[in-house]
Amino acid sequence: MNSTPPSSSASRLHPLEAATRLTPHGDHLLGHTSKDYWAFIGPFGGATAATLLRAALDHPQRIGDPLALTVNYCAPIAEGPLQVAVRPAKTNRSTQHWTMELFQTEGDILATATAVFAKRRPGWSHPIARMPAVPQPEDLAPYRVNLPTPWVDQYDMRFVGEQPLFRKTPHAEPQPAQTLLWLRDAAPRPLDFLSLASMSDAFFGRVFHILGVLVPFGTVTLTTYFHCAADDLPTDDGWVLGNAGASIYRAGFGDQTAELWSRDGRLLVTSVQATYFRDWTPPAD
Amino acid sequence: MNSTPPSSSASRLHPLEAATRLTPHGDHLLGHTSKDYWAFIGPFGGATAATLLRAALDHPQRIGDPLALTVNYCAPIAEGPLQVAVRPAKTNRSTQHWTMELFQTEGDILATATAVFAKRRPGWSHPIARMPAVPQPEDLAPYRVNLPTPWVDQYDMRFVGEQPLFRKTPHAEPQPAQTLLWLRDAAPRPLDFLSLASMSDAFFGRVFHILGVLVPFGTVTLTTYFHCAADDLPTDDGWVLGNAGASIYRAGFGDQTAELWSRDGRLLVTSVQATYFRDWTPPAD
Repeated sequence: MNSTPPSSSASRLHPLEAATRLTPHGDHLLGHTSKDYWAFIGPFGGATAATLLRAALDHPQRIGDPLALTVNYCAPIAEGPLQVAVRPAKTNRSTQHWTMELFQTEGDILATATAVFAKRRPGWSHPIARMPAVPQPEDLAPYRVNLPTPWVDQYDMRFVGEQPLFRKTPHAEPQPAQTLLWLRDAAPRPLDFLSLASMSDAFFGRVFHILGVLVPFGTVTLTTYFHCAADDLPTDDGWVLGNAGASIYRAGFGDQTAELWSRDGRLLVTSVQATYFRDWTPPAD
Repeated sequence: MNSTPPSSSASRLHPLEAATRLTPHGDHLLGHTSKDYWAFIGPFGGATAATLLRAALDHPQRIGDPLALTVNYCAPIAEGPLQVAVRPAKTNRSTQHWTMELFQTEGDILATATAVFAKRRPGWSHPIARMPAVPQPEDLAPYRVNLPTPWVDQYDMRFVGEQPLFRKTPHAEPQPAQTLLWLRDAAPRPLDFLSLASMSDAFFGRVFHILGVLVPFGTVTLTTYFHCAADDLPTDDGWVLGNAGASIYRAGFGDQTAELWSRDGRLLVTSVQATYFRDWTPPAD
């Protein structure tokens, strides 16, 4: 199995293009993890989600635009080549269902996914959720990060309110789970379903904000709904307002909710994820 | 392929037990649709979700309790026997990932699903969402339904506020998407993951509430997170408070969000779904 590691410096590809690139390889597709989108113990989940979505999006039998994507993170993906098996499970007149699996060693599944694509038709629309009123990104400070995870550098993040600073010891009292931030690709790139899939996971673990410290944490499963058609995607400067929160942490697992809004106030994406975490423990020294 | 149609009158089985019953059949599991849980053009999506969850839950290799379930409704299921293919995709020390497919004719997939199971460990818990303050179910009127769907009769529903009455013509102005209702199985049954999976879909289409009329509508994909372990399930009288809403309807598709709360104020389930709908059109007469 040969595959060239993606490198944004060695090619003209945008880092997200490189991270999600797939080429035919027998019955499957061949890709490669990206150092640009590395997280704590494997690739950033958003990049993996975008890679799995791309397997269906670029498939010759694909119809319509992404409506829903669920990615289940089964085990850490190691740095190196990866393969994706993709299959249209059912094609209807206006919807299409996909299943995907990601592996590095045949038979050892590292991620499973399903996606629904749909041909939208014009008709009644009814926005219910409202975009939070926030300052514009130009009026907010870029986030200067203190996280040991390269994927964060792929985004220009502008937090509304206090910049998150993660400390050595937890806050005395749990802090709010909700955060609002503008984000866009640090290297400019038109918004598309790959970037929206990736951005739907581009939020720090809510438990970090609640406790004020980093604890072992990861996404177990991510579900992202796309509320716009391809010809309806924003074509402005790429800023998206992210609104992330959570409902509960309990007995080793928690959830996360997220919305992505266009600058002109349209809800582009809603997303949920289930996460694992470990309790904070004082350093041993 | 032989299978006895489930009938709650012909046996001692609870209707939900009958609707979700699966027996080994070669490489797969054999079940049967239930008239008790029939919806407009096929089985109630909650019953299908519970059936697919049960395929993993009752599997001899299963570890832990359900954490997440995603069901994709690919095509209508006809009245009659059905088969489920179920496979543990990855088993870790404390989590397990499953994939399921439902079909009636080999090769023609009618539903796909993934599930995550997890062994929870005691530790830090942090409830964020709060149970809405509502009257108790005993103080609310049972819902006398005017919907042509038998599944609704499987639940005792007590709406908080106005009872939904669906009319021949839409409201002059769109009404709120959010509803609060107590619900429990009409035939008493202890709460378990099957009933919670089913209840996570036991809400009328939000578009019905918004417009006040029934329009062609269906769930395309449903994702349900379980926030309690098996030994932590309520053992009271089975009432669960449902809080359902939506974020957006746009160009033929919409979403739905739902929470299920125990009587003692614990968040048991959060759920999202993507739905299709057709615009209301005046009757032809």
